[in-house]
Amino acid sequence: MAKRVLVVGGNAAGMTAASRAKRLQPELDITILEAGPFISYSICGLPYYIAGMVERHEDLLTFTPEKLESERGIKALTGVRAEEVRPGRRSLLCTEVETNREFELDYDLLILSTGYRPRVPSMEGLELEGVWTVSRLEDGIRIQEAAGFGSRVAIVGGGYVGLMMAHGLGRRGLEVTVFERNRHLFGQVDEDMAEVIEEELRSNGVRLMLDAPVRRLVGRNGVFEGVEMGRETYPADLALIDVGIVPNTELAERSGIGLGLSGGIQVDGRGQTALPAVYAAGNCAETRHLVSGRPIFSALGTTAAQQGRVVGENVAGRRSFFPGSLETSIEKVFSLGVSRTGLTLRQALDQGFEASCAQVTGRERAGYYPDCGPMRVKLIFERPNGRLLGGQIVAGHSAAKRIDTLVAALTAGMTLRDLSQLNLAYAPPFGTLWDPLQIAANVGRRELERW
Amino acid sequence: MAKRVLVVGGNAAGMTAASRAKRLQPELDITILEAGPFISYSICGLPYYIAGMVERHEDLLTFTPEKLESERGIKALTGVRAEEVRPGRRSLLCTEVETNREFELDYDLLILSTGYRPRVPSMEGLELEGVWTVSRLEDGIRIQEAAGFGSRVAIVGGGYVGLMMAHGLGRRGLEVTVFERNRHLFGQVDEDMAEVIEEELRSNGVRLMLDAPVRRLVGRNGVFEGVEMGRETYPADLALIDVGIVPNTELAERSGIGLGLSGGIQVDGRGQTALPAVYAAGNCAETRHLVSGRPIFSALGTTAAQQGRVVGENVAGRRSFFPGSLETSIEKVFSLGVSRTGLTLRQALDQGFEASCAQVTGRERAGYYPDCGPMRVKLIFERPNGRLLGGQIVAGHSAAKRIDTLVAALTAGMTLRDLSQLNLAYAPPFGTLWDPLQIAANVGRRELERW
Repeated sequence: MAKRVLVVGGNAAGMTAASRAKRLQPELDITILEAGPFISYSICGLPYYIAGMVERHEDLLTFTPEKLESERGIKALTGVRAEEVRPGRRSLLCTEVETNREFELDYDLLILSTGYRPRVPSMEGLELEGVWTVSRLEDGIRIQEAAGFGSRVAIVGGGYVGLMMAHGLGRRGLEVTVFERNRHLFGQVDEDMAEVIEEELRSNGVRLMLDAPVRRLVGRNGVFEGVEMGRETYPADLALIDVGIVPNTELAERSGIGLGLSGGIQVDGRGQTALPAVYAAGNCAETRHLVSGRPIFSALGTTAAQQGRVVGENVAGRRSFFPGSLETSIEKVFSLGVSRTGLTLRQALDQGFEASCAQVTGRERAGYYPDCGPMRVKLIFERPNGRLLGGQIVAGHSAAKRIDTLVAALTAGMTLRDLSQLNLAYAPPFGTLWDPLQIAANVGRRELERW
Repeated sequence: MAKRVLVVGGNAAGMTAASRAKRLQPELDITILEAGPFISYSICGLPYYIAGMVERHEDLLTFTPEKLESERGIKALTGVRAEEVRPGRRSLLCTEVETNREFELDYDLLILSTGYRPRVPSMEGLELEGVWTVSRLEDGIRIQEAAGFGSRVAIVGGGYVGLMMAHGLGRRGLEVTVFERNRHLFGQVDEDMAEVIEEELRSNGVRLMLDAPVRRLVGRNGVFEGVEMGRETYPADLALIDVGIVPNTELAERSGIGLGLSGGIQVDGRGQTALPAVYAAGNCAETRHLVSGRPIFSALGTTAAQQGRVVGENVAGRRSFFPGSLETSIEKVFSLGVSRTGLTLRQALDQGFEASCAQVTGRERAGYYPDCGPMRVKLIFERPNGRLLGGQIVAGHSAAKRIDTLVAALTAGMTLRDLSQLNLAYAPPFGTLWDPLQIAANVGRRELERW
């Protein structure tokens, strides 16, 4: 009889694991279980849908269950929540969300790809109508409906999701205010880089409240009406909460599967959990930071898909390993591209590295070439050896994607010197004779010489 | 007394060497000698000047001799040709080009950065008025003047320079025909990628004559009138010749400085020639191909500047090394960006590698995001280990610059698997969940499994 594989969670990691396993072993009987109404969509595309740049939410879907079954031979059950793994019987207790009906499904191999969810802050008023978090397609659809032209939107927390939403809603002409408890937005980059992002947001009409911890959302008759901060109340029609994320590990915990130091499900390099025949992949699972070696859980779709691929191969009988991640991210904030990889200077110092940084503002193409904008680069490196620890770029257009060069350099353990001697591509429409990454590397080398 | 440094050649390598040495040892007495009228200009910017996208040729100049002396304390003599090194006396015999007056200059350290020049084909009619090669700013200025609107331009040879000119002159509305002796243009990429470039040229009104060796340029009263091929003559007003380049090594040869297998001046990793106190850097000097290990001379400004930096440091008393180059290039052909690094499949096979390739056409950003174009990627790799040997990209906009990721990967000796597991940056406006580079890597891995 064909082996039965159950996959809990139908997005990047789960979809990739299922597809890869099925491709390598077509005789596998694979079923994806998804609590929500959709599988296989681009959560990263939500702000562009909310901004009206992507017309229909269907455009964000890669597969419906029907399409998945007919094209790949993989079944998907939506509206089904996995409740508990029963490893002794190799079965999974499930609930049909709509009816609350319980049932059991047997498995030979089980993959947990339950993803993450928004962290819930300690704040009054979260239950009010008009208060949202954003982590699923259905959230985006409801926000799109609720946010009419002229609505006032309060975004509580200026992280990755908060900025994506500020960009998306700001572009639609809504009145957006971001409340950030720290002195600067977007802790994924260092404060000096965050300032450039803040300027861009302000010049596009987004109001920023920094150093502004929100204690309470206020409302009337159960409907959200404003954000209370200190003695003032800022009226608004909608609130979006983005104070970080946590991995969805309840199913694992309830089933006796251990978590790692990061809070994600503990797995080995092949994605195996402590329970036999049970794998975990994606944002619910722990992985290793390639620079620091520390356990992390990643919120990235890219890492989730890569982990899913590895688990899919192992489920199909191969020996495949996932090396780790760099917490690389890239984001569009109006006309800016913002990207980062590895450690920020702050993270590197907090983790005990002898870290320094070099920062330059170069040009994304030749100065005499039309449409040449600035490209700001920050490199973080270790003393005295010059090993790269991380990098950040803020630039116009697509120059932020050049962070990928640093991703490869960090993964290979390169130094500032290595980076400065790479034979990068140059022609006037595409760059400068010395790439800003290399100018920054040379500045860093001078910095090292002073030590 | 201050050490005297002479630098022969005032572009990328020479300028960088002089500047770096002066910065590290301000007491050095440095003089740059340049046979032509200009120093320190962007030869890569010429087609954009000829195309009218850069208004004044002065925009391509970074330094005039006056500016160089006042800002960096480096002297530059233009119109001076170096004739022979006299190592016994540590002097350089020079000629003032305008007057033919000979004179000698003493040196403590000498840097040869004489660059390259166009190769002269065996072809009748090269002496005719209206026949040009393009390797210096003064060529570009004269072509700009000669090529009036409506002129018919014959480009003989479809290499890097030929394509840059076809793009530049085509954009200005001139009638451009490219004559290429081989079956495909642009031998820097494999034939399947060249076909995409050819399509783009044709759809922008450039006429292509492939498999079309030119034997003779014809003219009347010493003025060019057309290209003769087989029994036909193709009338034209201007001819641009691009049949490759050769390093300028006459000065070295005349002075008893040995050349390497590539035809460039033989140097060690520090840029030292066989003569004591004489260095060479830039396109006249030999270096090492980082994938094949073979000696090459490179036509790249980037490599020239990096070699110049290393030589400048050594001249200032440091111990600095240049590891080598990958022959990375990038070019704009109307709306396309074309880039390459490492070996082509053809080169890899010719050099005895057990090479295969993987090719995919992905997207440069999320399919649902506005303005999403195709991104064609070709990876060349070694069997059975999957080590990357080279890569090529043809894409719209600036996606061709993503070749830099491959540059870092090749330099680090990464395999297809390493590439496919890099934590590259993703968000819908900037890319796809699996970057086309990684999709190609995964296709290559499947290809490897078949062996």
